[in-house]
Amino acid sequence: MSREYRVAIMGATGAVGATMMELLEERNFPVASLKLLASHRSAGTLKEFQSETIVVEELTHDSFDGVDLVLSSAGGSISKEFLPTAVKKNCISIDNTSAFRMDPDTPLIIPEVNMYAAHDHRGIISNPNCSTIQMLVALKPIYDAVGIKRIVVSTYQSVSGKGGAAVTELVTQTTAALEGRPVECDKFPHQMAFNVSFDWPFTDNGYSEEEMKMVHETHKIFEDDSIGVSPTTVRVPVFFAHSESINIETDQKLSVEDTRQILSQSEGIVVIDNPSQKQYPLAVDIAGTDSVFVGRIREDLSIENGLNMWVVADNLRKGAALNAIQIAEQLLNTTLDSRTDQS
Amino acid sequence: MSREYRVAIMGATGAVGATMMELLEERNFPVASLKLLASHRSAGTLKEFQSETIVVEELTHDSFDGVDLVLSSAGGSISKEFLPTAVKKNCISIDNTSAFRMDPDTPLIIPEVNMYAAHDHRGIISNPNCSTIQMLVALKPIYDAVGIKRIVVSTYQSVSGKGGAAVTELVTQTTAALEGRPVECDKFPHQMAFNVSFDWPFTDNGYSEEEMKMVHETHKIFEDDSIGVSPTTVRVPVFFAHSESINIETDQKLSVEDTRQILSQSEGIVVIDNPSQKQYPLAVDIAGTDSVFVGRIREDLSIENGLNMWVVADNLRKGAALNAIQIAEQLLNTTLDSRTDQS
Repeated sequence: MSREYRVAIMGATGAVGATMMELLEERNFPVASLKLLASHRSAGTLKEFQSETIVVEELTHDSFDGVDLVLSSAGGSISKEFLPTAVKKNCISIDNTSAFRMDPDTPLIIPEVNMYAAHDHRGIISNPNCSTIQMLVALKPIYDAVGIKRIVVSTYQSVSGKGGAAVTELVTQTTAALEGRPVECDKFPHQMAFNVSFDWPFTDNGYSEEEMKMVHETHKIFEDDSIGVSPTTVRVPVFFAHSESINIETDQKLSVEDTRQILSQSEGIVVIDNPSQKQYPLAVDIAGTDSVFVGRIREDLSIENGLNMWVVADNLRKGAALNAIQIAEQLLNTTLDSRTDQS
Repeated sequence: MSREYRVAIMGATGAVGATMMELLEERNFPVASLKLLASHRSAGTLKEFQSETIVVEELTHDSFDGVDLVLSSAGGSISKEFLPTAVKKNCISIDNTSAFRMDPDTPLIIPEVNMYAAHDHRGIISNPNCSTIQMLVALKPIYDAVGIKRIVVSTYQSVSGKGGAAVTELVTQTTAALEGRPVECDKFPHQMAFNVSFDWPFTDNGYSEEEMKMVHETHKIFEDDSIGVSPTTVRVPVFFAHSESINIETDQKLSVEDTRQILSQSEGIVVIDNPSQKQYPLAVDIAGTDSVFVGRIREDLSIENGLNMWVVADNLRKGAALNAIQIAEQLLNTTLDSRTDQS
């Protein structure tokens, strides 16, 4: 990591953009220069990075000049419009939107799971959906050990997945509800304070887009369409960190003890699993951390080779910004280096 | 219902006790007299019923004199101590605690599901756990139509299931969290504000007692130990109404359309299932209502004969007080009448 890289963040004023800046600093990412890009409306905003003030610039097709690495999190339509230009300008883009995730030419990468597939990129690497990332980090070691036939997952997703304005709206709604005033919805389709809800667009088969992402992304990342995935994604009144109740059927039996041991030894996973001592991963504890936390590992009582577990991770960090930066870090010594050598 | 009955409520100052009083009044239950029983600490409390003030009495073994029907919700150990006396005094008790649920001589009843089994009682009829009641009301018509092999369920349970003090603690914790003050836990083992958590005792197999209730009670109520039940019970920061994400594998295929039709025509069930119009059951809407609400019915994408659905009900009403009173109402013309005729 002796070289330094010219980095641009698309969507720099959003929740994930802010977390990307935090993480670049925390992790001493070798940043030669940082360009912050956002919409016309947000241009001119001032941000602090490494004790310097950076003025947010309006994203245009000229924004990528003099940039090596683009970290993109400004929405799918923005990625679709601008990342092809970044590719032409010889940048490497890590895209946190769904724009290119299912494109067969775009690798969809979780570093702990399928980093090998990243090196075959054509200028864009996609970051999976937050719910998929934490689920597959937790399941990959089990998949490798005994195979997985089927996953039934129900999520408990925090509102920060919907952006900073949704976090503010949960505060506003909660205050109104506690004071007995009417609860108003702007970001959320329904009251989110003291409620659980669905707030993703629905597809024709009755599943939400969020649910279908978990199906398709699992198949692509594991390169295995034979795994059954049956998801129900639910928004809960939690600010940060997603929790998931995951039930799996494995090809061969794996004991609870062996599962704990395999997961404990796996990269990116922390096992907290001592329920009798009230120890299991909880969203409020995991918010702000970098690992995927697994607990409540127990044998399924209803089938021969089944396991239940509870998986929690910070959706803005491992579920978004951190995963993107980890991809970039692991590319540094290979693709990114060879690319910038030619520029 | 020309006769009137002398009713006693055990646990009259609790959340379920209060709901029982509300429902007796709302439903014009034929109450000749109402005795409110609670601990020594709560004795002397004044309660309003049908425009009259009733003084809460301390529960003793003499409390059951002149009583026909006991509605009991004062905790399992209190039921174990006092209900045998109520039986000796020739009362019929509907017990909302877990004390006698798995006793082979005690019927465990959901009126829409297995009312036939209630008539064989020996003085005590058990009300199932709140999570079990709403799940089995929703699943019984499907079980009857095509059989059910296996249930994977994850719950989103409101804090009122833990009693009135827990509701107050969620308010206190939420206020503290919003004001940036430390969150204190008394009723909950962990922060409940803006968090999801587990707050039931755990058994040796890693499942909580709440989870194991869903397994054992399903087997007893359906009289079918062959159904696999794989539960994960989770507390969410919602005041009233439990939500459940339920995945089932049926013996024979049942289409989504047929499932909607069968459930819509079933007693005690309301189907709200139009996700593209953002219509599905939500806890804040269902709180205070009497039915079991089912939505998000969709074909499981991972197995041949599978369905996913979302089931919501008011845990204090259908999950507790209402179910108990419905049992009593349906007994009125049969057992209870014949019993009181002899007294």
